[in-house]
Amino acid sequence: MPHTAGAQMAVEINQQPDMFARMVDDTAQAQSVAAAIRAAAPRFVLFAARGTSDHAALFAKYFVEVQLGLPAGLASPSTLTAYGSRPDMRDVLWVAVSQSGGSPDLVESTQVARECGALTLAVTNSPGSPLASAAQLTVDIGAGEEKAVAATKTYTAQLLALWQVLTAWREGDLDVARGLPAHARTLLDAPEVLEVAHELRYVDHVITTGRGYSYPTAREAALKVMETSYLAAQAFSGADLLHGPLAMVDADRPVLAVVPAGIGGRAMAPVLERLVERGTDVTVIGDPGLVGGALARSVVPLPADVPEDLSPVLEILPFQRLSHALAVARHLDPDAPRGLAKVTQTW
Amino acid sequence: MPHTAGAQMAVEINQQPDMFARMVDDTAQAQSVAAAIRAAAPRFVLFAARGTSDHAALFAKYFVEVQLGLPAGLASPSTLTAYGSRPDMRDVLWVAVSQSGGSPDLVESTQVARECGALTLAVTNSPGSPLASAAQLTVDIGAGEEKAVAATKTYTAQLLALWQVLTAWREGDLDVARGLPAHARTLLDAPEVLEVAHELRYVDHVITTGRGYSYPTAREAALKVMETSYLAAQAFSGADLLHGPLAMVDADRPVLAVVPAGIGGRAMAPVLERLVERGTDVTVIGDPGLVGGALARSVVPLPADVPEDLSPVLEILPFQRLSHALAVARHLDPDAPRGLAKVTQTW
Repeated sequence: MPHTAGAQMAVEINQQPDMFARMVDDTAQAQSVAAAIRAAAPRFVLFAARGTSDHAALFAKYFVEVQLGLPAGLASPSTLTAYGSRPDMRDVLWVAVSQSGGSPDLVESTQVARECGALTLAVTNSPGSPLASAAQLTVDIGAGEEKAVAATKTYTAQLLALWQVLTAWREGDLDVARGLPAHARTLLDAPEVLEVAHELRYVDHVITTGRGYSYPTAREAALKVMETSYLAAQAFSGADLLHGPLAMVDADRPVLAVVPAGIGGRAMAPVLERLVERGTDVTVIGDPGLVGGALARSVVPLPADVPEDLSPVLEILPFQRLSHALAVARHLDPDAPRGLAKVTQTW
Repeated sequence: MPHTAGAQMAVEINQQPDMFARMVDDTAQAQSVAAAIRAAAPRFVLFAARGTSDHAALFAKYFVEVQLGLPAGLASPSTLTAYGSRPDMRDVLWVAVSQSGGSPDLVESTQVARECGALTLAVTNSPGSPLASAAQLTVDIGAGEEKAVAATKTYTAQLLALWQVLTAWREGDLDVARGLPAHARTLLDAPEVLEVAHELRYVDHVITTGRGYSYPTAREAALKVMETSYLAAQAFSGADLLHGPLAMVDADRPVLAVVPAGIGGRAMAPVLERLVERGTDVTVIGDPGLVGGALARSVVPLPADVPEDLSPVLEILPFQRLSHALAVARHLDPDAPRGLAKVTQTW
């Protein structure tokens, strides 16, 4: 059978509701890893990841700071590998996030973090990988094989698996996630995002933005569009956008803003106002109740009754569909972007 | 007298060698702040900053991890302000970096960090600012008034002031910086970067890249070009560039790579090789000894005898000149980019 451009990516995007259903039914792994973390009582959390996984790590960093009240950071793996640094990592929880679990610099930096006293956790789709072997604790995100080069279901599985572990660590209610499968099905059927893709099919440059828990969504959305449609896509936190990059926002560069219900979404209001003042073409993926017609040309609705810290699991779905639809409209094959391999080796 | 486009930015760029000379002669402030930090013996360092200052903070994060052997992270101020988080900040050194010292979210997050037990340090060009009042320790970077909206001398002053404090903290040799003024004069007189600006005058999109200590240079270079010439400029660490963004690198999107002498520069070799394989137009700002003609179309030379951890103070100078020259060639005024004010208020 001949390959239809983007067929594989579409299959994997559409597997997400059932995957969420399986994940919310099985919390034993999250509970057991969380118990081990609680017993160690870490005081700082460092995340190590690259590419799409780095966006899942950034989401988890917000969660740790806001919900667990611990200082957290994104590690620069090269300081432990290329530079040979051996920091004092006692009381540190080191969380390495990688779909393949095979990137040499993540494996090596995780080994070094462990030798330096950190409690190490690998969050991966490959429980038999070198990364999983290097860490004391492992979370298998169980997304199943992902064949398309552009990561979709492994990203949302990372987000949800991290949410489950961190929520279990703070002894929160894991059943809050039970609504995800139904919401995901609704989002994957909604027509609005295909209209946005049609409108944007000739664009050269888009800007994505969000704040708080939704800033990682903006980053991942930009990467997805870049790697499938090759157009220039830049992500800025709503606050950083006002520091410098605003100068290059103009009528030719539409802005896609993530504005879910909650604190991060509400904090986007002044950003949207500044963009509208400048005549920018703004599309909002968010809560229609928060965003009036004066602040956006079009709105792709997100459900309003999802807790803000779970919302990123859903927010990315319209962007995955947008990336797929834009690539196909531009006669590209999002299953196999030029110049990319599924597992990237970095040292 | 009528205003010549970019005259103010040019004046401030050219003030940097004399500013470096003043700074390397006066290490008392760095020694005294470093002594206070050493006495508190922090175990974790968090940096808070936005825009250009965030790039200086990222540089300092690498230094802390590599040279001081402490885990470090970039804080998300919104978790303390918008989300109202109150993390346990005992044993944390909180370093807020801001030219103006006036951004409300930085002031508030620094106050909260202090209340939560952190030792707080403000690095600012405005020692009488609310940020300086909020922190227990202050470093005045002493760059003098900066009138152009695009930050130039305040960025290098932040880098050098942070280098001095962190080097004094680790009881290193501050005299290593004595060569900076002469090197800076040479870089500001060198012709190569103006040739690059001429070549790039019609470009729509550039990509900057670097690794380790030089990754912040790539970030600041992209911001400088964006805010003065409005073209799309994207920065990626050399490692992240291979994870996804490589797909959108093509012949129309030249890459500017920062490749100084040292570990970070050497780690760029596989990245340059991949770019050359793809037919990308690569300009290197770096050590001509490291980069053969096969890996770059043109090379803007950096001095080879500067320690890698000081090199970023110099690396940005050619990019400042490039941003200025590109903007003027495009009939823009880099002193007053559209849509930007000197002090950005974010909450």
